[in-house]
Amino acid sequence: MKKETGKEFPQNALEQLNLSRDAVFNSWNTPKAIYYRRMEKIPDSIGTAANVQAMVFGNMGDRSGTGVGFTRNPSTGEKVFYGEFLVNAQGEDVVAGIRTPQPIAELEQVMPEAYRQLREITTSLEKHYRDMQDFEFTIEEGTLYMLQTRNGKRTGPAAVRAAVEMVEEGLISKKEAVQRVAPNQLDQLLHPVLDPAMRKGLQKIATGLPASPGAAVGRAAFSSEDAVEMSAKGPVVLVRKETTPDDIHGMDVSRGILTAVGGLTSHAAVVARGMGRPCVVGASSISVDEAKKLATILFEGKKLILKEGDWISLDGTLGEVYLGQCKTNEPDPKSHDFAVFMGWADEFRGKFGVRANADIPRDANQARLFGAEGIGLCRTEHMFFAEDRIPHMQAMILARDEKTRKKALQKLLPMQRKDFAGLFEAMNGFPVVIRTLDPPLHEFLPKRENLMVDIAKLPHAGSKEKKQMAATYGVGVGELKKHLPELLHRVEELHEFNPMLGHRGCRLGITYPDVTEMQARAIFEAAVLVAKKGVKVIPEVMIPLVGDVKELENQKAIVVRVAEEVLSAAKQKDLKYYVGTMIEIPRAAMTADEIAKEAEFFSFGTNDLTQTTMGLSRDDYTKFSKQYEALKIFKADPFAVLDQDGVGKVVEHAVKLGRKARPDLEVGICGEHGGEPSSVEFCYRVGMDYVSCSPYRVPIARLAAAQAAIADHGKAEVQRTA
Amino acid sequence: MKKETGKEFPQNALEQLNLSRDAVFNSWNTPKAIYYRRMEKIPDSIGTAANVQAMVFGNMGDRSGTGVGFTRNPSTGEKVFYGEFLVNAQGEDVVAGIRTPQPIAELEQVMPEAYRQLREITTSLEKHYRDMQDFEFTIEEGTLYMLQTRNGKRTGPAAVRAAVEMVEEGLISKKEAVQRVAPNQLDQLLHPVLDPAMRKGLQKIATGLPASPGAAVGRAAFSSEDAVEMSAKGPVVLVRKETTPDDIHGMDVSRGILTAVGGLTSHAAVVARGMGRPCVVGASSISVDEAKKLATILFEGKKLILKEGDWISLDGTLGEVYLGQCKTNEPDPKSHDFAVFMGWADEFRGKFGVRANADIPRDANQARLFGAEGIGLCRTEHMFFAEDRIPHMQAMILARDEKTRKKALQKLLPMQRKDFAGLFEAMNGFPVVIRTLDPPLHEFLPKRENLMVDIAKLPHAGSKEKKQMAATYGVGVGELKKHLPELLHRVEELHEFNPMLGHRGCRLGITYPDVTEMQARAIFEAAVLVAKKGVKVIPEVMIPLVGDVKELENQKAIVVRVAEEVLSAAKQKDLKYYVGTMIEIPRAAMTADEIAKEAEFFSFGTNDLTQTTMGLSRDDYTKFSKQYEALKIFKADPFAVLDQDGVGKVVEHAVKLGRKARPDLEVGICGEHGGEPSSVEFCYRVGMDYVSCSPYRVPIARLAAAQAAIADHGKAEVQRTA
Repeated sequence: MKKETGKEFPQNALEQLNLSRDAVFNSWNTPKAIYYRRMEKIPDSIGTAANVQAMVFGNMGDRSGTGVGFTRNPSTGEKVFYGEFLVNAQGEDVVAGIRTPQPIAELEQVMPEAYRQLREITTSLEKHYRDMQDFEFTIEEGTLYMLQTRNGKRTGPAAVRAAVEMVEEGLISKKEAVQRVAPNQLDQLLHPVLDPAMRKGLQKIATGLPASPGAAVGRAAFSSEDAVEMSAKGPVVLVRKETTPDDIHGMDVSRGILTAVGGLTSHAAVVARGMGRPCVVGASSISVDEAKKLATILFEGKKLILKEGDWISLDGTLGEVYLGQCKTNEPDPKSHDFAVFMGWADEFRGKFGVRANADIPRDANQARLFGAEGIGLCRTEHMFFAEDRIPHMQAMILARDEKTRKKALQKLLPMQRKDFAGLFEAMNGFPVVIRTLDPPLHEFLPKRENLMVDIAKLPHAGSKEKKQMAATYGVGVGELKKHLPELLHRVEELHEFNPMLGHRGCRLGITYPDVTEMQARAIFEAAVLVAKKGVKVIPEVMIPLVGDVKELENQKAIVVRVAEEVLSAAKQKDLKYYVGTMIEIPRAAMTADEIAKEAEFFSFGTNDLTQTTMGLSRDDYTKFSKQYEALKIFKADPFAVLDQDGVGKVVEHAVKLGRKARPDLEVGICGEHGGEPSSVEFCYRVGMDYVSCSPYRVPIARLAAAQAAIADHGKAEVQRTA
Repeated sequence: MKKETGKEFPQNALEQLNLSRDAVFNSWNTPKAIYYRRMEKIPDSIGTAANVQAMVFGNMGDRSGTGVGFTRNPSTGEKVFYGEFLVNAQGEDVVAGIRTPQPIAELEQVMPEAYRQLREITTSLEKHYRDMQDFEFTIEEGTLYMLQTRNGKRTGPAAVRAAVEMVEEGLISKKEAVQRVAPNQLDQLLHPVLDPAMRKGLQKIATGLPASPGAAVGRAAFSSEDAVEMSAKGPVVLVRKETTPDDIHGMDVSRGILTAVGGLTSHAAVVARGMGRPCVVGASSISVDEAKKLATILFEGKKLILKEGDWISLDGTLGEVYLGQCKTNEPDPKSHDFAVFMGWADEFRGKFGVRANADIPRDANQARLFGAEGIGLCRTEHMFFAEDRIPHMQAMILARDEKTRKKALQKLLPMQRKDFAGLFEAMNGFPVVIRTLDPPLHEFLPKRENLMVDIAKLPHAGSKEKKQMAATYGVGVGELKKHLPELLHRVEELHEFNPMLGHRGCRLGITYPDVTEMQARAIFEAAVLVAKKGVKVIPEVMIPLVGDVKELENQKAIVVRVAEEVLSAAKQKDLKYYVGTMIEIPRAAMTADEIAKEAEFFSFGTNDLTQTTMGLSRDDYTKFSKQYEALKIFKADPFAVLDQDGVGKVVEHAVKLGRKARPDLEVGICGEHGGEPSSVEFCYRVGMDYVSCSPYRVPIARLAAAQAAIADHGKAEVQRTA
């Protein structure tokens, strides 16, 4: 919005702007512009425009000047006139930082008339555009020229505060307020952030993928054991090549997690998000040497060694890592503005639900605080990885006969029951979807190659080394020679070429019906226990990886039999429960009408559905993801943003077929996409009843759903059952 | 067809039959009956029936007797009166084998009148049913009673001969003749069989999956190196835990292949079928110790040791293994009957094509002999596993820069060109579909765990062991210490969690465009070379694992650019070629309309499409396949018989979408299912233009297609382009 001045066009205008005519148009294709468009999802095909007009000059002496400003504080949202200016300067000088500009309030003293005009103009601009303005101006020999105005960028907290205050001022409606905040911006209200000023002074040592948002500052630890030990003395950041289920305790005690490999849905990323721990993954410049307790870092041409105990600061929202101890700023998610704003969002969201993925009572309580209306996914296997449980799990797996296996399962039963009871209590009155055992059994055993190496080393190992091995495997030194080959044999029996497509999910439950039976018993015994306390319990038992309705029939029969047994023994026959399935392989989607005859609900496991539909392993995709995204073969990482053109078609097909067979079929999503705004919008559009995501993304999903509902308003309502 | 006799019903009739009333009905559920139904695909729900009627007795003295017979020889099909009888005996006695029956011709001397009647009746029965009859009779005091007649079971050769002769006799039409032979029966005309009499005397030592049909007899070898060495002195059977691409040379010199693990689409199975080598896989009673050159076998409670050099006999059609050297009977696929019969089949098959999967000129020539009308799949990577090529392939993979990589590719170019030229020559006038590089690169490198173990062993290894290692890795002893960790590093870089869903197919071509370029150059240089000899060359370049049309665009651009360069340099611009894709991941099927805008043909890779659609790894499925099939969750092994209810829906959807976008889209199948009769029928029904299968299954596919066409006759013809 440049003002036409009517003055003669100066010969040197373009030179002064330091732009050739070509540069004006080429600027569309600078790496910075391309990166920005990709970030903001602006198509490359729009092209740039150039206005040619007369120049005004702020460098004509002391009655001239230039400045930039906002009608409200873009960091906090507070309604104050905000900005800075320079006397006798051109616009570039303000930005370049050669001279230090003055706060804009001081303009009132320096050029009172210009200041009065500026306030008047910007106030009416804000009213006209009904939004906070970001403006630029130049004063040429006492005359004010407005160079530009646009809706101002703002932080998450500022966006929420400004939106709420503008409604209170009568400037905008509640509906507009809800549309004013980008859902992902809420992240900044839910997590601490690195102090912007202090961060500038620190050395950046790596960039990776922003796997779990927020800031984490601590001393580097290179193994979970070290992290546990060091965490007693102060904050720790766990730095690993990659994490495995064995690292749960280390991740739990760490402020943040940093890995060298893995994608946005790698183990580290998924678990960290679930725990609400900031996490950066796939920071490929880092090479971790666990044994030497250090990491070699090669970043932007510089090599350095990160030693155990060195301070590092993670930004999980941007995927950046800094050397040193940065200050962090804590957010206040319970603030008045946030509560009011989310209340409005929920009004528009209507009956479309938002649940949380939570495996333990602590996460379930967190999820309730963030407004989750139930648990959409409890991954029961996460309960087995705890240190006091994994030996029983391993005993179950190593069992060569039914009796031994049942004995091990009996030990797990009370533990599972206790976990489930905690979840039901936290979710009083809201449904809890519990998935039966999903991962392949070898995930609970030591790694094959480690065993092979240890067996090869054993004959040459010294006594210290042997002791270490014995401790690792939980046997005596003398037993190693017999135990290791036996363990390897079982690991090899269970070895899979493609674990993702292997003996897991309901395939386990079908071949080991005892496991499903134990889990069903734990679920319903917990339900009865909690219901007797007067808590309203709504269990939904979910059978994973179903591809054929016969698989569901098989597992449902076990669940229903145990449920009837437990409920009638406890005289709780009117406790209503549901049995349903995850839709996570294409065959299930293609035969969803058959499956819906047995399934009382569907939940789309879009992580695995993306892997199978695209024939793309999420853990292996990172090897070529950069090239794929640079060549624009994929619009975005399909594990972060639902691939609506491909996977979305499969989902839509399944929803239609399922509802055709069972009109009141409850349909939701529990994959990582359940907390990603554009995917939430898709889920709303195809008629799902709810989305489920990690607790810390629940507010984001609530807002995204509200915006989808507003966008959809007036269109024919799709069938929805909740 | 039991005759009512009008006599009083004898009290002891059921007892004489050794059947209680319950037993009559329970016999439906004996394991034998269930097994038979599963084999013959008869539903379990039909139930059994029982006739109650008077008994006749063949054991009333010398004027009585009983017998069974066929109107033609069921082994050869020859038109002779065939069967046997016993004087003074009941039916059970003939079957039980307590007394040795006489040939039926001798009945003419013993009871001339009964014999005359029997010939008369059975001749008119054959005329009435218009098929060879399998009958039972009893003579009670001179009176002939027919107990039963039915269409006789027959061997493959007999089925073909009888069908051809019955047409010549005017008994049936050509169309009926074509319907009379089950396609899989043709296997017996294409492969040697173990001599039935001699086989009875041998000890069965294992059963596995019938991976590739035919009989193979040879001395056991437990490594490919040993197989090569031993094959100079006599026939060898290769016995391995499983095979890998490194075993190609060993498989090539062996008469048959036996593996302890793996399913019907494991490496051993696929490659053996391609080579036409009999193969039994997943014989889990066998435990191979490669180092000790022996296998421990635990079969039906007996333990034995199979040593290198021991003779074994494989039946790849039934999946059985015998200890000892069995005689084999050679078939004659070029016989008059077979040629006539296949000619009739082709008449009915019409324009629906049958191509072969063939990677090398020898297989292509074999395929032509069996009537293949083109190559539906040439897997170019198989050409890289040869001993003289794999070093260049490995150099290409280990290359850290483009220049080194290009140098390695340059060495592979002339080799590929020569192979392609051979295929084009063999297929003069028929299309040749060549797939660009598909498997992940780590398949061309040593195994990670072997490397890890060798690195762990190296410091303690003696000089002999070191020499052995050095030979394995193709470096000097002194280089091992440096080379092994470097190699491991690259192998680890390339390690994938789920190779099936990893960095392979067009994803390789996109990240290493040089490879696609080299392959395209080899293809078109070979095409030009061969075309100049006057051979008609029709290259179809197939891009694998496409999930998004942009992937195909990327690879097609390289192929078209190279093609235009090569063809115009050779002044062969009118040589027509096609670029298309494999449909093998669900996303491709769901977006087939988009993909068909770029693809000139589709070929369904139903092996991988089954894996991705069902979320089921073919190599890991064997772990629980027995339980799944026993519980009837799957009707059949989905990697052998196309899952029409699930994967079939995906295929059908893709054919429809593809033809909508490009009506003349050529559509075929190149997965293992292309040679399985019920799957061929499916392919015909959904409107494909052709099926492609291993050379030895080409006649089976031709017959299955003919039968599908006959069944379909009169129904509206689906759109087909060929």
